[in-house]
Amino acid sequence: MGRWEPNPRGRLEQAAMELYSERGFDSTTVAEIAERSGLTERTFFRHFADKREVLFAGASTFQQFIVDKVESAPSDAAPIKAVGAALDAVGDFFEERGDFARKRQDIITANAELQERELIKLASLASAVADALRRRGVAEPAASLTAELGIAVFKIAFERWIDDVGKRTLRESIRESLDELDLVTATGSSREPSPSKAPRAGKR
Amino acid sequence: MGRWEPNPRGRLEQAAMELYSERGFDSTTVAEIAERSGLTERTFFRHFADKREVLFAGASTFQQFIVDKVESAPSDAAPIKAVGAALDAVGDFFEERGDFARKRQDIITANAELQERELIKLASLASAVADALRRRGVAEPAASLTAELGIAVFKIAFERWIDDVGKRTLRESIRESLDELDLVTATGSSREPSPSKAPRAGKR
Repeated sequence: MGRWEPNPRGRLEQAAMELYSERGFDSTTVAEIAERSGLTERTFFRHFADKREVLFAGASTFQQFIVDKVESAPSDAAPIKAVGAALDAVGDFFEERGDFARKRQDIITANAELQERELIKLASLASAVADALRRRGVAEPAASLTAELGIAVFKIAFERWIDDVGKRTLRESIRESLDELDLVTATGSSREPSPSKAPRAGKR
Repeated sequence: MGRWEPNPRGRLEQAAMELYSERGFDSTTVAEIAERSGLTERTFFRHFADKREVLFAGASTFQQFIVDKVESAPSDAAPIKAVGAALDAVGDFFEERGDFARKRQDIITANAELQERELIKLASLASAVADALRRRGVAEPAASLTAELGIAVFKIAFERWIDDVGKRTLRESIRESLDELDLVTATGSSREPSPSKAPRAGKR
């Protein structure tokens, strides 16, 4: 196949995902990805640092998408609402990438090293959201905690969406998890009152 | 030094922690740990699978401690309260191990591979807590979400306790984070109401 074929990056990505699904991530080489896509290894490395990058290249775009949404929430929105609004928009981000996301998740679930990488990605996402909240003037520990809650909601919604193909859209799954967050925290204080209860954290 | 000295495991642990702090985790060998403790490499491997194990051997004990507390909460306690009660007890678990925990955290913070391992440990802890909640009859996604909230509270409280030496006990730090969880989620719904609001998650 000739070099004039369009979208080399997309073809490399597709070939890589097919091979990771068929043979497993560890057993696939860059040479095989290049061969299947009809391109060269050199072209592969012009687009991706390594074969893991095919699976994680979208992570920084996604992180920026979330951070932008948190920052552009109305300035008087409570932190949890700013994060909720960002999560409500996540469905749009994945709308065109549903098939890729599902295949990707299957590949990651099958490989311990990739699962670790995914955990690091989520931790980095939580950090970036906490930074965005601090830029909105949210103090600690509220910023970090709210960011972690948001990532927990996203993680669970995403897993449920992936697990039950066709049962709900990602947008619906995220809404369910956000509703569930309200429910599980709406049962009053998260612990039994104690005589030595500390002053409210917001005053610090 | 003779083999009749007591507590070989404790001496190996102390020697390892000293060396990790002085030279870094990567630059320390098991031979050096054995030498400093006055014991043999063979004795080291009778107590620890490898040098990383010195830092993570307590993880399964800790996980079991938390799971037991979640399971032994009053049967009518809301999921978030069962987790809150378990977290309230965590201060006791670390009371005798504060120095070790701080040193350990410094060693982990200095090493990317150990940080990844720590993230995996926390993910496994969240999984175990979700399992414990399901055994209490809590449905999904409430069980997973509540478990993730609990781990988020613990993670942030632990970091704040480590960062501000002497400012607060771990118990106080956990109480602050639990209070903060109430605060950040008490601002009503976690997102703006939408016309197409899904039915409450609890009914599914």
